[in-house]
Amino acid sequence: MASAWSLERNQLLVGAFVHSKTREELEVLEDAAVAVDKGGKIVGVQTGCETSAAAKQQLLGRLGWSEADVDLIACKPGQFFFPGFIDTHVHAPQYPNVGIFGKTTVLDWLQKYTFPLEASLKDLAKARRVYTACVRRTLAHGTTTAAYFATIDVAATNLLADLCLGLGQRALIGRVCMDTPGICPDYYRDESAEESLRATLETIAHVKRIDADYEIVSPILTPRFAPSCSGPSMLGLADLHRRQGLPIQTHISEHADDVKLATDLFPESGSYAKIYDDHGLLTAKTILAHAVHLTEGEATLVAARGAKVAHCPCSNACLTSGEARVRWLWDRGIDVGLGTDMSGGYSPSVLEAARQAALVSRYVAMPVPSGDARERCKLSVDEVLYLATRGGAEVVGLAHKVGGFEVGMHWDAQLVELNLVSQDGGEGAADKEEEDGFRDGGNVDVFGWETWEERVTKWLYNGDDRNTKKVWVKGRLVHSRP
Amino acid sequence: MASAWSLERNQLLVGAFVHSKTREELEVLEDAAVAVDKGGKIVGVQTGCETSAAAKQQLLGRLGWSEADVDLIACKPGQFFFPGFIDTHVHAPQYPNVGIFGKTTVLDWLQKYTFPLEASLKDLAKARRVYTACVRRTLAHGTTTAAYFATIDVAATNLLADLCLGLGQRALIGRVCMDTPGICPDYYRDESAEESLRATLETIAHVKRIDADYEIVSPILTPRFAPSCSGPSMLGLADLHRRQGLPIQTHISEHADDVKLATDLFPESGSYAKIYDDHGLLTAKTILAHAVHLTEGEATLVAARGAKVAHCPCSNACLTSGEARVRWLWDRGIDVGLGTDMSGGYSPSVLEAARQAALVSRYVAMPVPSGDARERCKLSVDEVLYLATRGGAEVVGLAHKVGGFEVGMHWDAQLVELNLVSQDGGEGAADKEEEDGFRDGGNVDVFGWETWEERVTKWLYNGDDRNTKKVWVKGRLVHSRP
Repeated sequence: MASAWSLERNQLLVGAFVHSKTREELEVLEDAAVAVDKGGKIVGVQTGCETSAAAKQQLLGRLGWSEADVDLIACKPGQFFFPGFIDTHVHAPQYPNVGIFGKTTVLDWLQKYTFPLEASLKDLAKARRVYTACVRRTLAHGTTTAAYFATIDVAATNLLADLCLGLGQRALIGRVCMDTPGICPDYYRDESAEESLRATLETIAHVKRIDADYEIVSPILTPRFAPSCSGPSMLGLADLHRRQGLPIQTHISEHADDVKLATDLFPESGSYAKIYDDHGLLTAKTILAHAVHLTEGEATLVAARGAKVAHCPCSNACLTSGEARVRWLWDRGIDVGLGTDMSGGYSPSVLEAARQAALVSRYVAMPVPSGDARERCKLSVDEVLYLATRGGAEVVGLAHKVGGFEVGMHWDAQLVELNLVSQDGGEGAADKEEEDGFRDGGNVDVFGWETWEERVTKWLYNGDDRNTKKVWVKGRLVHSRP
Repeated sequence: MASAWSLERNQLLVGAFVHSKTREELEVLEDAAVAVDKGGKIVGVQTGCETSAAAKQQLLGRLGWSEADVDLIACKPGQFFFPGFIDTHVHAPQYPNVGIFGKTTVLDWLQKYTFPLEASLKDLAKARRVYTACVRRTLAHGTTTAAYFATIDVAATNLLADLCLGLGQRALIGRVCMDTPGICPDYYRDESAEESLRATLETIAHVKRIDADYEIVSPILTPRFAPSCSGPSMLGLADLHRRQGLPIQTHISEHADDVKLATDLFPESGSYAKIYDDHGLLTAKTILAHAVHLTEGEATLVAARGAKVAHCPCSNACLTSGEARVRWLWDRGIDVGLGTDMSGGYSPSVLEAARQAALVSRYVAMPVPSGDARERCKLSVDEVLYLATRGGAEVVGLAHKVGGFEVGMHWDAQLVELNLVSQDGGEGAADKEEEDGFRDGGNVDVFGWETWEERVTKWLYNGDDRNTKKVWVKGRLVHSRP
């Protein structure tokens, strides 16, 4: 299938490129050009290109490309390229429930809202409708890679893989394993550990069939969370992990009640993290969602195993779970990315997750006595956008491919446009306004005096999908809007 | 000027109407009709109108209106009318800075970001551009009433009043008073208490000239916050309040540092609330922004005076100020509304403030031991939408006019439309999609099985200005989008 993805022409992108240089620093490459080959890979990055002509002159010869074979995509003034967002934890079947959580916390939320909806997606027509809406919507928000939890249903999970590949979203597809009676309802549970494994193998085989090299879609082993999985089920998945090298995703320490439930069910492990470790699931390819209530000892263990954390700020607020401490996790050597965690989180947007990550860090700071320790809790704009891109890439095991603009990486990116306020205080870009009498450039108003840093900040705080004009995955244009 | 506002025709609005019945309960009037006369007042509310014809039959005769004299506005399926939002605390001149706050807290934020921008708006061309953008943008978000802080500049403040009246936004216009050297920078400070009062009287006179009965725009006395105001300045404003009955707006107990500064400057008062009370500024017409760190004693005093609170959840998170306890304030008999507090808050949207109010209430709940006391901290969807409408109306002293749909109230409202997901998972409303190949109905995806309560919930959590299709103030259409 790799050839199906190959593009007809090379691409030369010219303009401003903003991406994370380090955790602490966004880099702005103005007057730059990026060359993307037919395989969707970045083969050249060149600064000092004030015009498209200069970009061509500097790159085409070096790459041996003829001008006739190149599509030129140039930023308009004020536009910039940004890496595609990476959603490290999202439940596709829960998309219709975004915002609907009432006053529940995670355990009653599962029973009341989540399990009934997930179970209903064994109806494939419904699954197609929900998954299509979810993938289209998240692409529109600039999500180029998503680590999806699907449901226990194999056919519906396979359909999600088909849709991601068809619509062009890079995705890790997780068929959910959950076989513990009492925790999982009778109407929505794997019959046994063997059944969990058999069904998982079926989805792995399907993904292999449609994308042999896991270039766009790939399988991910998905024990829902320790309380929902029997020991044999977890051991079986760990065995599969060892044999096939597949990544793993699950939940950890989301809410105090969830910690208690897990440790009550596995008293011999003594801690939530140790449960996964005892069952072979705590590895350098493991994504742990939430990690709100990890202890020092657990953090040490997680760091030692190289497991990663998906920070889900919206969800943790909605479900009153607590505040995950990103700086604290970083200080302990743990990589962190962002998860929308729909529908525990209310929003399909990773930009919203980044915004809320900045706010959550301030809630982490508030009880700390004023001084350097409090200040360190706060995450900067650059840091939360790192979480949304390179941080996420590390978490999903794709840091060598996506999350930034370097030679050898894939062109997973978005073109961002902000709204220029006209001199009379209206929306700018008169050409569009004249066309149809109405223009909707979104909520980010730029007055013209802002620095690049301020523009990106404004985008973080008031941006939405309207600012994401184009989205590419592996060089292919997978979303655009006027 | 009242006649300038009168409408040429009566209006009959037909469809679903959602508004707060009580703090705890949104009421949905399906198949209803609201009659609005040429003065912009609601003169009839009728349920049981399944068609426009039925609405006409039931209302026109009773009102003595001829059909030829009536404009009919009917909801499409899925649309509903909702009261316009009330922003009880917003700084118009800070609009260009939304999202820009770095890692500051309120006192350094004022010096670093806010005072320089505010001072620069004495340039009237800049003020016109900024204020126009601000008013248009907030109208687009459904804000029909705003309590604005302007700047110390009289001409620019008067211009803000002109723009609100011209663009049709109900507004309280506050010329900011701040005369304390050391706290206020030399480049942005009233020369004296007398100068504060003189300038305030000038803006009052201007507003009186353009809207004699304060029907759309009205003046509000605006001592910035106690630390920035001398005793004589506050006493002078209090005297003006008593003589003219004008409302008052200020800040209180936003951040611990701010509390310390205020009580250090006025040691004889002993508490922040008592400072205002000692200077005659704590009245039933006073809007106190923030009130994050009020003590029990202060809350008792505020309640006794009947002063109100503008809760600013976005701002309090951004500036690491703390979490205001809405339930706690309500329990003490204090009325509460919502403020965007741009640009301490990052968003011009009251819907965003309502969303964040729900989340902040969960942060208030988190440290409380589990049980009823914790559950009570959380605000429901209905409660935060009450804050955004009727609660706000109480805070700005307009509860008899706006915030709900009853006979005698003014038609300050918005028409909300959500996005219906098509059967194939795309956006619905095929007619529009066919027109230009692209449709942007916003982020609220309705699948069709949702209850009214769930639809409103989805709007709260993923809605934005795209869902607000029309906005009316006092019966006049002041914003619409395709």
